[in-house]
Amino acid sequence: MNNFEFYNPVKIIFGKDQISKLPNHIPTSSRIMITYGGGSIKKNGVYDQVIKALEGHFIVEFGGIEPNPHYETAMKAVELARENQIDFILAVGGGSVIDATKFIAAAIPFNDGDPWTILSEKKPVKSAISFGSILTLPATGSEMNSGSVITKVETKEKLAFGSPFTFPQFSILDPTVASTLPQRQVANGVVDAFTHVVEQYMTYKVDAPLQDRLAESILLTLIEEGPKAYEDPSNYDAMANLMWCATMALNGIIRAGVPVDWATHGIGHELTALHGIDHARTLAIVLPGVWRVLKEEKKDKLIQYAERIWNITEGSENEKIDKAIEATERFFESLGIKTKMKDYNVGTDTIDTIVDRFEKRGWTALGDRQLADIPTIKEILNTQLQ
Amino acid sequence: MNNFEFYNPVKIIFGKDQISKLPNHIPTSSRIMITYGGGSIKKNGVYDQVIKALEGHFIVEFGGIEPNPHYETAMKAVELARENQIDFILAVGGGSVIDATKFIAAAIPFNDGDPWTILSEKKPVKSAISFGSILTLPATGSEMNSGSVITKVETKEKLAFGSPFTFPQFSILDPTVASTLPQRQVANGVVDAFTHVVEQYMTYKVDAPLQDRLAESILLTLIEEGPKAYEDPSNYDAMANLMWCATMALNGIIRAGVPVDWATHGIGHELTALHGIDHARTLAIVLPGVWRVLKEEKKDKLIQYAERIWNITEGSENEKIDKAIEATERFFESLGIKTKMKDYNVGTDTIDTIVDRFEKRGWTALGDRQLADIPTIKEILNTQLQ
Repeated sequence: MNNFEFYNPVKIIFGKDQISKLPNHIPTSSRIMITYGGGSIKKNGVYDQVIKALEGHFIVEFGGIEPNPHYETAMKAVELARENQIDFILAVGGGSVIDATKFIAAAIPFNDGDPWTILSEKKPVKSAISFGSILTLPATGSEMNSGSVITKVETKEKLAFGSPFTFPQFSILDPTVASTLPQRQVANGVVDAFTHVVEQYMTYKVDAPLQDRLAESILLTLIEEGPKAYEDPSNYDAMANLMWCATMALNGIIRAGVPVDWATHGIGHELTALHGIDHARTLAIVLPGVWRVLKEEKKDKLIQYAERIWNITEGSENEKIDKAIEATERFFESLGIKTKMKDYNVGTDTIDTIVDRFEKRGWTALGDRQLADIPTIKEILNTQLQ
Repeated sequence: MNNFEFYNPVKIIFGKDQISKLPNHIPTSSRIMITYGGGSIKKNGVYDQVIKALEGHFIVEFGGIEPNPHYETAMKAVELARENQIDFILAVGGGSVIDATKFIAAAIPFNDGDPWTILSEKKPVKSAISFGSILTLPATGSEMNSGSVITKVETKEKLAFGSPFTFPQFSILDPTVASTLPQRQVANGVVDAFTHVVEQYMTYKVDAPLQDRLAESILLTLIEEGPKAYEDPSNYDAMANLMWCATMALNGIIRAGVPVDWATHGIGHELTALHGIDHARTLAIVLPGVWRVLKEEKKDKLIQYAERIWNITEGSENEKIDKAIEATERFFESLGIKTKMKDYNVGTDTIDTIVDRFEKRGWTALGDRQLADIPTIKEILNTQLQ
């Protein structure tokens, strides 16, 4: 097992009717900014529950945070928060709203130039406004970690940051809130969570059998419960299980003491930045390509994955791996998520653009053991063309 | 899945050579009390590493904390801490030292009478001195939770408390520290961690498949790695895996959203209080009895346990369960831990004494669905007589 540090102080409040407990977690004297997305919370009753729970608190609202949240949008929220001397932010939404809120919380007190440099120059975050979240979409795990991904529209850049100051103080996970989600978003959530797990699993063995099994536990449960939540988002137990899987997938537990990859995310982010493809869909395209091209380097874990996740016990090592990759693609496709670039009208020119962008940023390689160097990234994308 | 809250702010620092990082986690201005047990840390080099790492800090020492730590001992530490205006405690030891330290930390500022009433009358803890730990023995999980069990010698009572103020700020888990442990203690640790998991697992199904699999992950890893660590405590990877299993067994993760039991612990504590039997050994006696007597009520989970943990797929439901209970006992015995009361020279008179003590305390039943009422407890102990 590798040495590690683990720290995650987020309080999780999980279950039915938990939004009404909000006042237990935010001081009455707080000056609150509520952040949210496109307004679905005003249709599904969540907004009303929040406003009712926070009666008597000072509140300003900032709506309109988009998927793959924009730096430009977040900076408008920073301005509103500063004007109103906000000291607590309540994010009501999915990963995009929570990610944007982390950036907003860090940007409000930031006094070392343009807050974009937190992402572009990795400038350290030295403080942040306190915030909590009400999760409306199981997917990114942002509700229980300190990471955030922000897109700058001007330059079509999608970059990540994280800091010990950007953990939510609490996150309320009420599966009933997700009962009216469109199937497309549920499918995206399943694939996103699935990919988070394998980014921390599909590397190489370091004698960490508990971590392997914990990761496999999440994968098996996503495969079992994800399709049920996709078929019927109002199936409470299925949605609850999906929600807890998505949170556990990226709260640091399964990463503790093992190598990680993240090449799939690194490449996928570019497909979103360039073509606006849903984040999860970019992962479904790239992931099978990474495994196909790096089959030899990830062999031990791919075989374990084939056996333990897909119960593939027959055939040569190579056959097991191929079958497991195909099973993974079939699983994504069963949720209505296509796995080839042509399905999204993306061609070889995009491969050149992506490589170009990586080279301009000085990125020579991504992922586990830096295996995904520029020629490998080209090959990965070529493999998934059609 | 049941509604739940999860909160665990303990920072875990895991791996080789991590004790030297102590100064990163304790402010230089702190007035530190180091708590420890029987002095093994002075023989195995841990004490020297700690003193070297904390050079320049104000330090007082309090050694001699016994297994199943005593209220009477802890109160002497409280006095020493008050005399020296201690504001940070560093526990260096196993679960007993850490449990005692939690009580000491809460008792120092306690001003509502005798601190024993925190346990005996469940008086609330309203503050505590900050503390961290250096774990020397994988077993209790105390390094990553806020719970503590203290024994009052005067009355032979062993009682538990917990509070949001009694989480360690950090715990350093260095498996090399455990490399010189006696086999007996390693065996105890394996059985203790194993029992912690099943106390949160062997109840009834609530459609929480992820929690089931996470618990099973720890059990499978303990069965695989525990004997290796027992055979050779200096096997770094085996000890590291055992250590992380023991921590994960009781940090709240596997309990989130599922029913719990704890009848085995409730009954086992009495065997320790009355006869001084090692905590883990009392669990090895009581646990198979609980399962035998409550076989029908815990049937669904016992069958799942038989199939997934021991790969028992043949036979009737009843046969599967019996085989699984026998396999569990064989596992404990393979670590040199006996599972019958007669092995410890304990007879039927003790059963009467235990029941008497429960009745005097007004305890009518223990465990999952309060299934272990007084007649059931008698039956459980009778089943395990010989």
